[in-house]
Amino acid sequence: MALVVMKFGGSSVADTDKIKIVAKRIIAKKKDGNKVVVVVSAPGDTTDDLLTMADKITSNPPAREMDMLLATGEMISIALLSMAIDAMGEKVISMTGPQAGIFADAVHTRARIKKINPQKIKKQISKNNIVVVAGFQALNPKGDITTLGRGGSDLTAVALAATLKADSCEIYSDVDGIYTTDPRVVKDARKISYICYDEMLEMAGSGAQVLQSRSVEIAKKFGVEIHSRSTFNENQGTIITSEEKIRRDKMETPLISGITFDKDNVKFTIIDLPDIPGLAAKIFGRVAKIGINIDVIIQSAVVNKKIDISFTASRQDMKRTRLEIDRISSELKAASVVCDDHIAKISVIGIGMKSNPGVAAQMFEILHRKGVNIEVISTSEIKISCIIDEYDVLKAVEALHKGFGLSKEN
Amino acid sequence: MALVVMKFGGSSVADTDKIKIVAKRIIAKKKDGNKVVVVVSAPGDTTDDLLTMADKITSNPPAREMDMLLATGEMISIALLSMAIDAMGEKVISMTGPQAGIFADAVHTRARIKKINPQKIKKQISKNNIVVVAGFQALNPKGDITTLGRGGSDLTAVALAATLKADSCEIYSDVDGIYTTDPRVVKDARKISYICYDEMLEMAGSGAQVLQSRSVEIAKKFGVEIHSRSTFNENQGTIITSEEKIRRDKMETPLISGITFDKDNVKFTIIDLPDIPGLAAKIFGRVAKIGINIDVIIQSAVVNKKIDISFTASRQDMKRTRLEIDRISSELKAASVVCDDHIAKISVIGIGMKSNPGVAAQMFEILHRKGVNIEVISTSEIKISCIIDEYDVLKAVEALHKGFGLSKEN
Repeated sequence: MALVVMKFGGSSVADTDKIKIVAKRIIAKKKDGNKVVVVVSAPGDTTDDLLTMADKITSNPPAREMDMLLATGEMISIALLSMAIDAMGEKVISMTGPQAGIFADAVHTRARIKKINPQKIKKQISKNNIVVVAGFQALNPKGDITTLGRGGSDLTAVALAATLKADSCEIYSDVDGIYTTDPRVVKDARKISYICYDEMLEMAGSGAQVLQSRSVEIAKKFGVEIHSRSTFNENQGTIITSEEKIRRDKMETPLISGITFDKDNVKFTIIDLPDIPGLAAKIFGRVAKIGINIDVIIQSAVVNKKIDISFTASRQDMKRTRLEIDRISSELKAASVVCDDHIAKISVIGIGMKSNPGVAAQMFEILHRKGVNIEVISTSEIKISCIIDEYDVLKAVEALHKGFGLSKEN
Repeated sequence: MALVVMKFGGSSVADTDKIKIVAKRIIAKKKDGNKVVVVVSAPGDTTDDLLTMADKITSNPPAREMDMLLATGEMISIALLSMAIDAMGEKVISMTGPQAGIFADAVHTRARIKKINPQKIKKQISKNNIVVVAGFQALNPKGDITTLGRGGSDLTAVALAATLKADSCEIYSDVDGIYTTDPRVVKDARKISYICYDEMLEMAGSGAQVLQSRSVEIAKKFGVEIHSRSTFNENQGTIITSEEKIRRDKMETPLISGITFDKDNVKFTIIDLPDIPGLAAKIFGRVAKIGINIDVIIQSAVVNKKIDISFTASRQDMKRTRLEIDRISSELKAASVVCDDHIAKISVIGIGMKSNPGVAAQMFEILHRKGVNIEVISTSEIKISCIIDEYDVLKAVEALHKGFGLSKEN
């Protein structure tokens, strides 16, 4: 008898009709002869509604109270979903994150799972119950409720699948799986059948929003195979698994798996910095200290003992970044700071490029032919990212998607 | 330094503006030199909204899941209220019922508090924190969240006040205190300054909805003095305390403290039952078994070895009661069952009537003079209730209120 972890996102439980659809789906899985553990997010806009309420009260709420507030969303989901499953005649029990034995560190609003004690879940499974667990939440060492950050329900699902040694981990949402690029933007986008963890990580980190990065990291670490699929149809989705498994099962891996784009970035350039040792460490140490994540960094060649440094940061951190960079710039006696918020990052991702050095050149050539200007380039072993003007995004993504042959079945 | 328990009802925290008003009020109490423990209900219509959602899923939800669902309402309140207090610069910590050490029995949706372990609250008080506790909820022996039934937040407040040996227990709502009758119905209704536990119990059990009966029982048992007052003004409210204390402080107690009415009843009459021994026990034992509370019972004299039995039950139980009574009636070969849902119960309540036997006669005389027909009468030591036609309620209440001199200050 197989053990399946099924995770349903907020849009899958947005209203009572959808909750009933989800309940049917879970029961079908049980009737197929599986033991089933379900992880569920807060219904639809609940989390946003709660955040709006908090924001009306204070712009700076204590993190502990924020977690107390946000944890209610998933509790509503587990209770309603369990009622629906019970009403359809199957044995079911709901559990909050703390009740399910999920323990996290003491960092509120973005805690990390430290340990899962699966005894209570196992006991309920052995009683033939479907177990419905609240995603996104855990108990910290003080006995307080804590939350795992946005997308934390994916993490709950993967961590439970790892701890329970589940036979599969199915992550349901309102999309069919992982696509070669955003199907809302490029009509030709094609669903990917298999993608390896590292590619998925690069895609999640470059704008694809189907899966949360940390959950993919945990899946990779513990070898949990994820099936990303739709709540509302029976189509096969995308399997996220190890590179080895994909290589073993298929003759060749594709050169490129997907194209992502991300408009959530702004670019800062500090002009005419003195070329002193440890300059980058000094600047980015200061920025890291105030909790700002930097993405692409590029440093110009030295001209007259002066250099320029450019980097991109998240749009939502723009004001705070600007303040800190202005301060650093005046301390270091740089000439000026320029901020460009009309940029976008497009990335080409594929494990195939490890053994195929021509991909970068091919990408630049495709963009050049379309008249797209590249401002900054950054590469990893399996990804090439370019910062371009945000107005060129659609043109660039379509050209790359076609140029790398992603529209055809590989 | 006094310890004050302050309880705020759902209408007091219905929106973020009201939550801020409540936060200010709590901080003022703290700044007056008190230690403060706050108990709070779910915001406004939250509980009803949650019930509506559950009802869309199933008409028969598992009680455990219902409690999981309903407990979220108070968690939202404690989180938002704590944020508001924190934003105004006072130290505060929120606690769910389970976190506050409130343990109940295993009966879901109407659990009884078994034990309170106040260590965690005391520790936070000693750290100079305002402690904000979720009302209405507790932990049961299985480690599940359970709820204390409607109005359960009052119970939480009084039980905490008793356990913590609080110097006062203030119950805030959108009304100024306890009135001689419903001020929305009778313009002349007057706020009562002092009322004893037993009178309050009779009033709560007869239609006055300001305080939950069980909380008054607990207050009486542990000698907790309750101050029922408004969230939105500084007026002195009503003190609910012991008869002894009222007698000690005042020369005389009033004959009558209040008039209540309750339209939430239906009357059943089983006609021509055989006069067999244990008849009433048989009927009401069966009704009690399916969880239906019976209020007034009246049995006719025996005529031709046949008797009639009438009783009233809550309107919401009407269908279930009817089914069971029809069954019993046919088993016992009674002639028929009549159900009247156009009735109301009016009650006259006062400890003064213990030593004054003329009250009942006075009540009947007042009603008679107004042309109000009395269908059933039931009395206790400090209460006389009459079942009348519901269309006569307003006329009856006004006449009794005036007739017993309640409009004037006593």
